[in-house]
Amino acid sequence: MNKEDYFIQQFTNQTKLIGDDAAVVGNMVYSQDAFFENVHFQREWMSLKQIATKSMLVNISDAIAMNAKPLYALLTVAIPKDFSTSDLRKLANGFKKVAKDYGIKIIGGDTISNEKLDISITIISKSQNPIYRSGVKIDDLVCYTGDLGSCKKDLKKALKGKKIASKSKLIKPKLKGDFFYDISKYVNASLDISDGLFFELERLSKASKVDFEFFDKISSDIGTSGEEYEMLFTFSKKNLEKIMQSAKKHNVSLNIFAKAIKGSYKTDAKNHHF
Amino acid sequence: MNKEDYFIQQFTNQTKLIGDDAAVVGNMVYSQDAFFENVHFQREWMSLKQIATKSMLVNISDAIAMNAKPLYALLTVAIPKDFSTSDLRKLANGFKKVAKDYGIKIIGGDTISNEKLDISITIISKSQNPIYRSGVKIDDLVCYTGDLGSCKKDLKKALKGKKIASKSKLIKPKLKGDFFYDISKYVNASLDISDGLFFELERLSKASKVDFEFFDKISSDIGTSGEEYEMLFTFSKKNLEKIMQSAKKHNVSLNIFAKAIKGSYKTDAKNHHF
Repeated sequence: MNKEDYFIQQFTNQTKLIGDDAAVVGNMVYSQDAFFENVHFQREWMSLKQIATKSMLVNISDAIAMNAKPLYALLTVAIPKDFSTSDLRKLANGFKKVAKDYGIKIIGGDTISNEKLDISITIISKSQNPIYRSGVKIDDLVCYTGDLGSCKKDLKKALKGKKIASKSKLIKPKLKGDFFYDISKYVNASLDISDGLFFELERLSKASKVDFEFFDKISSDIGTSGEEYEMLFTFSKKNLEKIMQSAKKHNVSLNIFAKAIKGSYKTDAKNHHF
Repeated sequence: MNKEDYFIQQFTNQTKLIGDDAAVVGNMVYSQDAFFENVHFQREWMSLKQIATKSMLVNISDAIAMNAKPLYALLTVAIPKDFSTSDLRKLANGFKKVAKDYGIKIIGGDTISNEKLDISITIISKSQNPIYRSGVKIDDLVCYTGDLGSCKKDLKKALKGKKIASKSKLIKPKLKGDFFYDISKYVNASLDISDGLFFELERLSKASKVDFEFFDKISSDIGTSGEEYEMLFTFSKKNLEKIMQSAKKHNVSLNIFAKAIKGSYKTDAKNHHF
């Protein structure tokens, strides 16, 4: 078990709320994700606006995975001492643009002076019908949106000091909120792919106590590509057609790659950023 | 204007919710505070349990200042790579102890591997009657709890590499929740003293558009001592007796040091941690 998981485990006896992309209390859904320099990104890879944008999107992705509509955000931003006011405006504009796009109000947070740019965001969302990781049923079809693999490739490039295209999903995740809210009533379990498909499948397996029968072999380039922020979800076969129709309507490609069976699934893939 | 304030100002046109110790949405009160290594503390000063404890208490202090009861916490913890599982347990125990003492459920958050120990906490609270910084009325008496000054002294000692007593408020703030909830109906405006009395008075002045007439000169050792987490609040003279009675009951010392007058108050004191 890695240290992050060990630390989280210290709290899981205390509450059953830990373990999904977000915590549900009544109709409210709370998620908090860190986006730290040299942990989740390097400053050379992205503009400040892109950094702020991605930090918001990865948090909104958690809300979408829970079938929750984000309403409010708290931003804690640790700002490097050498930032100019122009830098601060660029950063703020990134946060504000995403907030506007998603109808989110930025209601507070904290700002401090630090060595590096470390962002921690809390998103407060609402859901009438939250979707959990624990909802997989035997025989469910297992599916992810979009294409996986490009983020791993781009991450490799970035780590070698090469420039990444601004349209890369590593720079700006392509969230599938409209599609996912549309099909949410047909979905049994979901989470977003932040640490790679194989790793997320292990999480799904743990939460739902199921194994997966793969229809085709999935290469490690696809299965271990993190930072994708595609949706991974399961549903009953009887809802396949409705889900396909919605995917077509929203121009989202679907990859139905496995079905849920009895057992448990483990991967050797590691949960790491870089 | 310092960079932190400049950054916050980028968001204040967007929402009126920013500017208090916490944001109020309906009955819910949300606060998020960072507690970062080498910004708010050095690891040599405190045990891991003390660090976790203080990071929780400074956040709970925000809730108390708003007259809100903390219910839930989200913890984002960036963990240094060299931490052992024993270190992680000590840290977790600090969080859990405070959570238990205050009846708070830890419902989620994020853990990442980092160079230094950086903690960011969101506290979700409830209040039927939140108190704001903007509520000061002309002729209000202005008051702080406890004694100010020791944190500045202890901070100086710590920065010189000297050991600080574990009972120091710099190690463990002495929150006045029971007292403050008790008198909340008599309080017009409040905030906690995290950056020093003079600095907090400027915040109060800005929010309420008032100046303060001091009854006695306050020394800079008292007025610029940060990290105190005492309550600063104002109230109508007619409630003085009830507040004094409650203070006696809760064994809290009160310092009524000024009254609110027309005008505006500015200090030369700087908002800085160390």
